[in-house]
Amino acid sequence: MASLSITLTELERITNQLLQASGLNEENAAVVADVFMRATYRGVNHHDVNELPGRLAGLAAGKVKANPSITRINKYGALENYEGDNGLGELCGMFIMRRAEQLADEHGIGLCAIRNTHHLLASTPYVEAAAERGYISYIVTRGAPTMGAPGRKEKVIGTSPMGYAIPTDKEYHLMFDACLAYASNGVLAEKAAAGESVPSYWGLDSQGRPSEDPAAISKGTRLPVGAHKGFGLTILGEVITGILAEGQIIDEPQAGSGLVGMPSHTAICIKADGLLGQRQFRQRTTEMADRMEARAAGLQLPGQRSARSRNQIIGAGAIELKEELVAKLNEWSGKLGIEPLS
Amino acid sequence: MASLSITLTELERITNQLLQASGLNEENAAVVADVFMRATYRGVNHHDVNELPGRLAGLAAGKVKANPSITRINKYGALENYEGDNGLGELCGMFIMRRAEQLADEHGIGLCAIRNTHHLLASTPYVEAAAERGYISYIVTRGAPTMGAPGRKEKVIGTSPMGYAIPTDKEYHLMFDACLAYASNGVLAEKAAAGESVPSYWGLDSQGRPSEDPAAISKGTRLPVGAHKGFGLTILGEVITGILAEGQIIDEPQAGSGLVGMPSHTAICIKADGLLGQRQFRQRTTEMADRMEARAAGLQLPGQRSARSRNQIIGAGAIELKEELVAKLNEWSGKLGIEPLS
Repeated sequence: MASLSITLTELERITNQLLQASGLNEENAAVVADVFMRATYRGVNHHDVNELPGRLAGLAAGKVKANPSITRINKYGALENYEGDNGLGELCGMFIMRRAEQLADEHGIGLCAIRNTHHLLASTPYVEAAAERGYISYIVTRGAPTMGAPGRKEKVIGTSPMGYAIPTDKEYHLMFDACLAYASNGVLAEKAAAGESVPSYWGLDSQGRPSEDPAAISKGTRLPVGAHKGFGLTILGEVITGILAEGQIIDEPQAGSGLVGMPSHTAICIKADGLLGQRQFRQRTTEMADRMEARAAGLQLPGQRSARSRNQIIGAGAIELKEELVAKLNEWSGKLGIEPLS
Repeated sequence: MASLSITLTELERITNQLLQASGLNEENAAVVADVFMRATYRGVNHHDVNELPGRLAGLAAGKVKANPSITRINKYGALENYEGDNGLGELCGMFIMRRAEQLADEHGIGLCAIRNTHHLLASTPYVEAAAERGYISYIVTRGAPTMGAPGRKEKVIGTSPMGYAIPTDKEYHLMFDACLAYASNGVLAEKAAAGESVPSYWGLDSQGRPSEDPAAISKGTRLPVGAHKGFGLTILGEVITGILAEGQIIDEPQAGSGLVGMPSHTAICIKADGLLGQRQFRQRTTEMADRMEARAAGLQLPGQRSARSRNQIIGAGAIELKEELVAKLNEWSGKLGIEPLS
C-alpha cells in the first residue's frame, strides 16, 4: 500500500486541531494528541493514529464525551476510584495514571481505577509517560467477554490488555503492552490478510475445534496464554478493573445504556526510589537487562523494539502514513474546517 | 504406591514438633506448620508436606535459619523491604504477607518485599490466609534463571512463581498459584514418570530444539507462556522482587555466600473494602464467578479444585500420605526424639 511521509509537527498539529474541532478543550486535546503520538511512535500501524478517524466519528456521533467530568467515587488512602462520565479513554487513562503517580508520591504505591470510560488505544502511552517521570507503572483494561477459558469455546471474559514500564539507564525503558489471549484481534486479522496460519493452541473455530486458521479463530474463540495460567491472571485483571472501579463485570450491561463490555481501567504506580533511590533503582534495572543480554546475545527485551521505532521516527522528524489514512484525516479536516496535512 | 491414612491432628502435631525440635521457637513452628497444612490441603502431592523432610535436612545442615531476625531495610509509606536473614521461606513469606495486610489497612494497598530468604513451598498458603482476612492478596517469588526467552535455549530468568487470592461468598476463594513457564519442573517430572508427551511449545531440548519429551525439556530449557507475553510478565516479577527487595537479580551471586538464585519474595495486599465495603466486594466477586459459570456450564475457576480438595480433606479429618513420606517423617521423628506418626 502506498504511503506518504508526514512530519511529526504536522501530524501532531492536525491531531490536536481535529480533536479541538471535535469539542475537546485545549488541555484535553493536548493530552489526547500526546497519547496518539506516543502510540504512533511504536511503529506498529494499529492502535495508534490509525484509530483517530474512529475517535472523531465517535465524538461526532455523541457516543463519547470530549470533556468528561471525571469525579471521584471513593477513596481509601492510596486507593481511589472514579466515574469516567463516558469520556474518551485516552483522557480517562491518562487521568488515572497521573493520579496513581500522585498517590505513589504520597504512599509509595497508588492504585486508581475508573469506570464508564472507553478504549484507550494501547497501554504504552500511559506507562511510558509515568516511567519517564521515574515510576514503575502498570495499567490494565477490562472489556466485553471475548476470550474463552482453557479449551472452552464459550467466551467468558475479556483479554485483560495490560502494560507496564520500568525506567532504566539503557536506551529503552523495560516496557510491555499485550493482552492475555495468545493473539489480539489485530494480530489475527494481520495473519489472515497475509494468508498465514497460526499455532492451533491460539484458539478454537466456531465449532469449538482447535484451528490454525486465524480467520476461523476470529469467528470462533481466542484462548488465554498458558491455558489456566493466562485465564487466572485475566480474572485478577477483571477484579482490579471492573470491581474496584465499581463498573461492569463480565457480560453485565451498564445501567441506563444497557451496553455490555464498557471498559474500566486501573493504573498502579510504584515510587521505587522511595526504597532505593532513583539512581540506584535505574542502575539495578539496567544491570538486570545487561545480565539477561549477557546470557543470551541479541536477546530482545520488552520495550526495545518500540524504543528503536520511536527513536527512528523522532530522529527522522517524520513518519510514513498509509495514503488511505492521510485521505481520511484530510476528509475530517475538510468536515471540521481544519488545514489538511501538508 | 501404597499410602497410609493420617489424621490431620497427627500430621499437624508431628510437623509442629519436628520443626520445634529442629530449632524453631513455638510461634515460628506454628506459622510454618500452618503453611505446610494449607499447602497439603491442596491435594497436589508436591510443594506440601512432602517437602518437610527437605526442610528439616536444611535446618539440620545449618543452611537455613529457624528463627531469623527479619529486619527492615527501607520504608516509604506503603512500600517496605526487609532482610530475611537467611530464614525459612515459610516464615519470610508469611511475615511479608502480614506486613502487606497491615500496610493495606493503613494505606489501602501495601507492598512488602524480602531478600535473603528461601523457597516458600507454594503461593497458596500466603494468599489464602490473607483472603480469609478479606484482602485481595498477591505474592511473587524470584529465583535462579531457569527459563528461556521466547525461542531461546539460554536460561535468562526465573519463572516468577506467583499466586493471588480474592475473597468471594462462594464455597471457594478465587485463587491462583502458578509460575509463568508453561510447565513447572514438578509437572515435567510427573509427565516424564507417566511416560506422557507434552506440547512442543512448552520447551526446548538441550540442543535448543522444540521437544515433546518432558525429560528432554527438563534437561533443556522451559519456555514462558505466550512467548513474549509470559517473558515480559516475568521481568516485572523480577523487578518487584529482586530489585525492590534489594536482593539478587538474574544470575547475580549473593555477596558473601556466592550463591546464585537466592529467592526474594514480594507480597501485595489491597483492602478492597476500603473502596466498596467488604460485603459489596464479595457480592461482586461472587457475581463475577457466577456470570462466567452461567456462560460456560461446568467451568473450572481458579481456586475451585483446591477448595474441593481442602473441604474433602478437612471433612474427612485425615489425609492419605505416601508410605515413603510417612517413613521419612518417622525417621526424622526418631532422630529428633519425637513421637512417630500414629
